[in-house]
This record gives sequence, C-alpha cells and structure tokens, in this order.
Amino acid sequence: MRDAYHDELDAISAALVEMTNMVGSAMARATTALLSADLQLAESVIAADDEVDQVYRDTEQRAFDVMARQQPVASDLRILVTSLRMVADLERMGDLALHVAKVARRRYPANAVPQELRPTVLRMGHVAEEIATKAGRVLSERSVPLAEQLERDDDEMDELHRELFSVMLEDDWEGGVECAVDIALVGRYYERFADHAVSVARRVVYLVTGERPVPATS
Amino acid sequence: MRDAYHDELDAISAALVEMTNMVGSAMARATTALLSADLQLAESVIAADDEVDQVYRDTEQRAFDVMARQQPVASDLRILVTSLRMVADLERMGDLALHVAKVARRRYPANAVPQELRPTVLRMGHVAEEIATKAGRVLSERSVPLAEQLERDDDEMDELHRELFSVMLEDDWEGGVECAVDIALVGRYYERFADHAVSVARRVVYLVTGERPVPATS
Repeated sequence: MRDAYHDELDAISAALVEMTNMVGSAMARATTALLSADLQLAESVIAADDEVDQVYRDTEQRAFDVMARQQPVASDLRILVTSLRMVADLERMGDLALHVAKVARRRYPANAVPQELRPTVLRMGHVAEEIATKAGRVLSERSVPLAEQLERDDDEMDELHRELFSVMLEDDWEGGVECAVDIALVGRYYERFADHAVSVARRVVYLVTGERPVPATS
Repeated sequence: MRDAYHDELDAISAALVEMTNMVGSAMARATTALLSADLQLAESVIAADDEVDQVYRDTEQRAFDVMARQQPVASDLRILVTSLRMVADLERMGDLALHVAKVARRRYPANAVPQELRPTVLRMGHVAEEIATKAGRVLSERSVPLAEQLERDDDEMDELHRELFSVMLEDDWEGGVECAVDIALVGRYYERFADHAVSVARRVVYLVTGERPVPATS
C-alpha cells in the first residue's frame, strides 16, 4: 500500500512538470500567433487549453483522493496541499496563454502588435516560455538556486512590461486606442503568467526549505 | 482536544468571512478614490492591504497547523484544503482593490475616469462590493441559492466590463491613450475581483454538495 501511495505522489509531481511544458508551449504559440496574426495557430492554442484544464482536474482529484484515503503524515500532507496550489497556478498560466491567443483572434486579420513593440512582445514571449520551462525544472529537481534564477527572469518581465507602457504613452504613439488597450491587456497577461511561475517556484522552495512563500502582489 | 480542534476550524471560517468584509470595503474605498481622485483615500487602501495579507498568512498558517497536528478525517480535510484555496482567492481580491487604488494614485491630481464612463465604473464598484458581501454570506450560511445569485452578479460585472470597452473603442472617444490603458486595466481588476468571489462561492457549493467547482477562465 505504501508503494502505491508513493506512486501516486510521483504521478502528481509528473503531472505538474507536464503542465509547465503545456503552458510554456501554449504561451510560445500564442506569442507567435499574436506577432504573425496567425488565426489558425491562435485557434489551436485556444482549443488546447481544454487539455490543460483536464490535467488540472485529474491532478486535483488525484491529490484529494490520496489525502482522503491515505491520511498522509505532516510532510506528505504539505507536499499534497502545496501541489494543489501549484496545479491551480499552472491552470491559470494556461488561461493567460489562451487570453493572448484570443487577442490575436480578435484582431485578425490585423496584427495586434505595432512594429515598434514587436521586439518587446517577442522578448516577453521568450521570457514566458523560459520561465515556464525553469518552473518545470525547479519542480523536477527541487532546485532552490534555479528558483532564484527564475525570480530574475520575472524581474526582466516586469521591466519589459514597463517598457510597453512607456512606448504607448509617448507623444508620438500612432497605434491608436484599440491597439493600446490590447497591448495593455497582453502585457498584463505575460506579467501574470510570470508571477504564477514565480509562485510555483516559491512553493517548491517552501517544500525544500520550510520557508513560507510571500504572495506576489502584481 | 476535539473541542479545541473545532474551535480552530471555526476561527478559520470566521477569518474567511472577515476577509470578505475587508476586501469588499477596500474595493469600495478604491472605487471612491478613483472616481474622486482622492489621493489620501487611495493611500489608505494601499496601506490597508498589509492587514489583508496578515490575515491571509495567519489563516494559512492556522490551517496548516491544524492539518499537521490533528490528522483530520476526509470531510474536515476537505474543508481545510478548500479554506486554503479560498483564503488565496480573498488575498488576491485585496490585491486587485490595491491595484485600483494605485491607478487613482498614479493619475492624481487628474481623474482617471472620464465623465462618460463614471456611471459604469461606479456600478462596477457597487457590484464588486455586493459580490464580496455575498461571498461572506455564502461562507457563513453555506447557502447554495445565494451562491447562484452571486453568479448573476458576476454576469452583470462581465456586461459592465464589455460596456467599458465598447465606449473606449467608439470613434468619438476623446479620453486618449493613457486614459484608455488605465480603464482597460481597471476594468480587468474589477472583473477578476468578481471572478475570485465566484470562485469562493463555488468552493462553498463544493463543500455543501460535493460538486467539483469549474475554474473561471476569464
């Protein structure tokens, strides 16, 4: 019984890592769809979020079942409760990729991102993909140094986010109101995506060190 | 021992209800600060979020302690795990009120909301306050019908959110880009605030009926 139990914990852990791959890939494809006004790609990102939601529900159910059946002791209980919160962060990251894809779809056949902001949005997409991948490694390797590195990626995301706004608020901005609104929301989606990755990493650090994570406020 | 244990569960439940009051009040005051360009009020909302965070941390710690010490059985475990997720929703609602207040502060002494959007933003503030109050009642009374009513408030919030965008994207919009960006973000803060209240209500329904909540995607 004890072995089946640890198999369950391993399966939950593997599902979390799988979700980091799914949402990282979703955000990468959403960024491409956004920058190239690719409707088909946007639709595929939107449709694929159902799979993320399915893994979310399955993993949540599995964690609840293990808790109910096995009455885990303190350390395993902490892992399970923390997993439930990480799976919620990851599910939300999937939603945020979906939102970026929806902006691409809404503006199609126009391109939602004006030329001058393309490098910034492209970089935000890359940082988002990298941060999701690192969150996966933090999860699988339980690496505190890597979690710290991920925080620096989040700082870069915040900087890119500020950059978007400063460009839009310059006097010579020609993108118009609709475009500015889209970019403001898109910027927020990337920023929140990174925040949730940070949250996952901090929860892993908590499991490893016992240090309580501080919620990100942005 | 059994009594002290149930006192702990009651204290957690009371803290959740208290948090709905805190965040509902914070969003109400943030709305007033925003609509009247009241810097002092905005600052007080921003400062008060520390208290919400403190209740969040205390409640989380209390739930962890109870789980670790008491090895609760299935139904109590479900309540505790669900409480941990509700307290995170409520903490986030506090953040979103803080974000609205920060927009008021950033635009001071200007008013962030143009005249034509004042009724919509005012109504969003009222719906947010009502939905937080109802979430508190859903929590304290474990009322499924009230949770359903709260979903309808969320529908109204979504409708108000769409209204904001349609006004900003009309040809005769004179608010400019900076204002549109602020309003787009503010609209998103109210909408997410309501989503988290819905999430709290759905988790209560889950505790009462055993029906698993579906995560809100917006």
